[in-house]
Amino acid sequence: MAEGKDLKHWDRIIIGIDPGTNVMGYGILGVKGKTPEMIMMGVIELNKFESHYLRLARIFERVSGLIEQYLPDEMAIEAPFFGKNVQSMLKLGRAQGVAMAAALNRDIPISEYEPRKIKMAITGTGAASKEQVKEMVRRILNIPQENMLPQLDATDALAAALCHFYESTRPQVEKGCRSWKEFIAKNPDKVKK
Amino acid sequence: MAEGKDLKHWDRIIIGIDPGTNVMGYGILGVKGKTPEMIMMGVIELNKFESHYLRLARIFERVSGLIEQYLPDEMAIEAPFFGKNVQSMLKLGRAQGVAMAAALNRDIPISEYEPRKIKMAITGTGAASKEQVKEMVRRILNIPQENMLPQLDATDALAAALCHFYESTRPQVEKGCRSWKEFIAKNPDKVKK
Repeated sequence: MAEGKDLKHWDRIIIGIDPGTNVMGYGILGVKGKTPEMIMMGVIELNKFESHYLRLARIFERVSGLIEQYLPDEMAIEAPFFGKNVQSMLKLGRAQGVAMAAALNRDIPISEYEPRKIKMAITGTGAASKEQVKEMVRRILNIPQENMLPQLDATDALAAALCHFYESTRPQVEKGCRSWKEFIAKNPDKVKK
Repeated sequence: MAEGKDLKHWDRIIIGIDPGTNVMGYGILGVKGKTPEMIMMGVIELNKFESHYLRLARIFERVSGLIEQYLPDEMAIEAPFFGKNVQSMLKLGRAQGVAMAAALNRDIPISEYEPRKIKMAITGTGAASKEQVKEMVRRILNIPQENMLPQLDATDALAAALCHFYESTRPQVEKGCRSWKEFIAKNPDKVKK
């Protein structure tokens, strides 16, 4: 837990969000050089609010508060593109929209990642369980067991931030080129003579 | 068009929103005593933005701007609960969520109405066409033809605001009681002796 460090310590701060209508997870990732570290993680409990609007208001208020407190440079959001039914997707869309509005309000760029993509980035397999994701996130970020939270929504959110960190830093060869041959053709100056 | 009037003139101002991911309609309704009047209506064109995020950012920015400018007391939103597929509902949910966040940000209460309910309130039939809704809104609010907009999204939004006005002012008998008998039983003081 690197919450005690001054925010100026970090080169980059990423807020990860795992939106839901019952519980919303969040994770704040600090990057210094090439090393990511957890600043904070937590959940926003929404179950206690019966009204859908109070839940949305709570999400907006809390995500806005986190942005004010941790001044993230980017937002990464876990966003499933498929769901059980249209009504649950509408509700999920609203929860996502409200969380995104908190970022849009401060001109913070948003990247979204499918759950499968996040699992793949963290554990190497898109079929990993949430518990596996949690354990890998803990190991990658060297989080002591006593600082872990029982809620998987928190580690899922942190995993989204970590996935975004990997995506934004991985070499060009993986991003835009299909082979080393293509990479070398596109980047002749990177070849040692 | 009552845009020239001082906002203090009105007892109540209602902003109506018809959210969409291509075009978002809005209508500002002023109420003085028992009379509703159109202050303004318009559309937010989103087609020109290719990115989904730019569209969401635009909605948040414009709806926030309208709220700052017209200081509405309430928001009424046209909200279909069913859609073609989960993906379009997720997108619609996001657009709704972002528009709602602009209201939540200012503690403005939100009411949502199904399209059928709005049509019923304005035209007397839930199966009315958008053109019929437009013409009835025009007549009810005495809007001169030259002040009408071609976009049906604008009149739909105004219709949502008007529907909310009717809903919030209609007598108790329609709201909570199933019959005059029940109403009289619940409200004996309202019976003239």
